[in-house]
Amino acid sequence: MSKIVPVILCGGSGTRLWPRSRKARPKPFLPLVGDRTLFQQALDRCDDDTLFGAPLVVAGEAHVPLIREQGGANLRLAVEPAACNTAPAIALAAALADPHDVLLVCPSDHHIADVTAFRAVAQKAAALAHDGYMVAFGIAPDRAETGYGYILRGGELPGGHRIERFVEKPDLARAEQFLAHGGYSWNGGIFAFRAGAFLDELEAQRPDMARAVADAVAQGAWSGSRFDPAPAPWGAIAGESVDYAVMEGTGHAAVVPAAFGWSDIGSWPALHEARAKDGGGDRDGNHVTGPAELVDCRNVMVETDGPRVSVIGLEGVIVVVDGGEVLVTSADGAQLVGKLTGASGQ
Amino acid sequence: MSKIVPVILCGGSGTRLWPRSRKARPKPFLPLVGDRTLFQQALDRCDDDTLFGAPLVVAGEAHVPLIREQGGANLRLAVEPAACNTAPAIALAAALADPHDVLLVCPSDHHIADVTAFRAVAQKAAALAHDGYMVAFGIAPDRAETGYGYILRGGELPGGHRIERFVEKPDLARAEQFLAHGGYSWNGGIFAFRAGAFLDELEAQRPDMARAVADAVAQGAWSGSRFDPAPAPWGAIAGESVDYAVMEGTGHAAVVPAAFGWSDIGSWPALHEARAKDGGGDRDGNHVTGPAELVDCRNVMVETDGPRVSVIGLEGVIVVVDGGEVLVTSADGAQLVGKLTGASGQ
Repeated sequence: MSKIVPVILCGGSGTRLWPRSRKARPKPFLPLVGDRTLFQQALDRCDDDTLFGAPLVVAGEAHVPLIREQGGANLRLAVEPAACNTAPAIALAAALADPHDVLLVCPSDHHIADVTAFRAVAQKAAALAHDGYMVAFGIAPDRAETGYGYILRGGELPGGHRIERFVEKPDLARAEQFLAHGGYSWNGGIFAFRAGAFLDELEAQRPDMARAVADAVAQGAWSGSRFDPAPAPWGAIAGESVDYAVMEGTGHAAVVPAAFGWSDIGSWPALHEARAKDGGGDRDGNHVTGPAELVDCRNVMVETDGPRVSVIGLEGVIVVVDGGEVLVTSADGAQLVGKLTGASGQ
Repeated sequence: MSKIVPVILCGGSGTRLWPRSRKARPKPFLPLVGDRTLFQQALDRCDDDTLFGAPLVVAGEAHVPLIREQGGANLRLAVEPAACNTAPAIALAAALADPHDVLLVCPSDHHIADVTAFRAVAQKAAALAHDGYMVAFGIAPDRAETGYGYILRGGELPGGHRIERFVEKPDLARAEQFLAHGGYSWNGGIFAFRAGAFLDELEAQRPDMARAVADAVAQGAWSGSRFDPAPAPWGAIAGESVDYAVMEGTGHAAVVPAAFGWSDIGSWPALHEARAKDGGGDRDGNHVTGPAELVDCRNVMVETDGPRVSVIGLEGVIVVVDGGEVLVTSADGAQLVGKLTGASGQ
C-alpha cells in the first residue's frame, strides 16, 4: 500500500470564538492549544514519512497568505475559486492525486490531543479505504452532545464497522439515547478515501459535480506548489457536504472507532477544556493566557492580548480581551457569542 | 444667624474603586454618579446663597490642579502642607473663618441622592452648632454594615439629640443589634461647628494641635483665593481625626438624623447601588457606562473607558475596563480589589 496523502481542508470562519477569532484571522490559524496553530497541528499530525506522503491543502484565496506563512512556500496547495463545502474540495484533491492514493481528509479547525492514537486510527482507516470503503472516523462520544451529527455502526469489518446510518444533530433526549446505546459515534469530519474510489462514487451519486470538478482540474494549472482550478467550470458547482453528496448514499460506508482526545473547539468552554487537558492550568481549574491575576476563582479561563485582567470571586466564567473587545461570559452563555453585535459586525 | 460656610475636605485616595480610581485621579474627582464629579456635587449641594456662604476647600497640593479645573479659579482653597487627618483640616478652616460662622464640614468622596433633604438637615445642624454644639450627621442605617463607626443618640434636643456614645466599627453581630435597636446611626463624617466653639473645644482637648494650627495660620498667607499655612508649625501637628480629637471628648456632642440617600461609594457594589438609585439602569438591575452589550444578565455593572464590553449569562458581576486594566469581580469579591497587584502597584 502506498503512503497516505493528507488532505487538509481550511474553510469557514466561525464566530463562536470571537473576539479572538475574526474574519481576518480565523480559528485554524490561531495557536489555541499550545504554541502551534490548529492548522500547523494538522500538518504536524501527518508529519511522519513512514506513514504519510506530502500533504495537500485545499483552501480559499483569502487564507493563502496565512497558509504560506504558517505552512511554508513548498506546501502543496489547491486554491478553490469559490467555497463550495467539502464534497468539491475533496473531489479536487482526489482529482489531483494518483487514483490509487489513499486520501486522509482532515479539517484544520479541531484539536487532537493524542497524535499517536490518531496515527494508529488513520492506518486502520487507510486499510479500509484501500479496499474501496468510504471511511468516516467515528469519534467516541463522552457526552450527550446536540451539536454534532452521529454515526450508527453496523456489521463488523477489519478495524471498523460498516455504517448503519447517519443521524443529523439530535435533540437532547435522542443524544442521551445514543450515548447510552453505545453504537453511536460523532461525525467529526475526518475521512479516508481511495482517490479513484471516491471519484467513482461521486460520479455515481453527483455526476454534475464530478464533471465540473474534472473540467476545472483539466483546465486548471500548477504554478510551483500551487494549483488553481479553472474558475468557470468551478463556478458551476452546487456546493454540498461530503456527508450528503457521498457518505449517506454509498453502499460502502465504513466507520473506524476514534478515541484520541478530539475537540472541535466549537466554543470558549470547549477551548478551556482542551487547554485543561493540555496542561498549564492551576489546581482550581483556572487557565490563564496573558497577564492576569485570579483571586478566589474556580474554573475561570482568561485570555488577553495585552491588558491585564484581574478576576475575583468567580466560578465558571470566561474572560477574553482581544483587539479592543472584552468578552465576559458564563459557560452556558458562550453558546450565544456568535450572536453578539461585536461578533456579527466584525 | 449668618450663612453656613461649607468646608469641603479633599483627602485620601482609596484603592477600592481601582482601576477607575488611581493615585493621579482619586475618587472625589471622578464623575461616578451622574455627569458631575463627587467633588463638584459637594460644591453643588451648597450652591444656594439663601443658606450657604462661599465654600472653603481644604486639600493637599497634589489635588490643587484638579480642584482648580473642576471648581474654578475663584474657589477659596486652603492647602495643607502635609496631610494630618480631619481635625487639623477643620481647625484650619475654623481659624480662617469668622468665629461666629457655622462651618458645615463635608467630605468630597461620598454621594448624596436627595439634595433637598440634605439642605434641610444642614439647617437643623447649623442651628444646634450656632448654639455651641459639636454636631454630627447621623446617617440612617439601612443594613448591618461593619465598615462604619456608629453613633448612639441620647437625650432629645431641638432638631436632634445629644450623642450618648460613639462606637467603633462593630462586628456583624453587634451591627445587627445596632440596626434592631433603632437608636444608632452611621457616622458619615459630616459635621457642623461654630468656628469659635470648635477652636475652644480643640484648645481644651488638644492644646498642642490648636496652637500649631493657630501659628500656621498666623504665619501663613493668602494669595488670591489660595491660603497657605506656614509649613514649619504645620509640620509639628500630630495628625488625628476629628472624631478622636474633638467629638468623643466633648460634653456638647449632638447628632441630627440624616436620611438623604447617603453612600460613601466605598466599593464597586456600593457604586452600582448608588447608580441604580440615580436611574439609568435597566429593569434587570444592570447598569452600563460606556460601550457594552449585555445578554441574559442580572445585576451586572459595566464601566468601560473605551473598549466594548460584551457580557453573557452572568448575575451580580462587575466589569471595569480602565486605562488598559480589566477588572471582573463578584459583589463579595469587590472587597478584595484594593489587594490586587494592579491596585497596590499603581
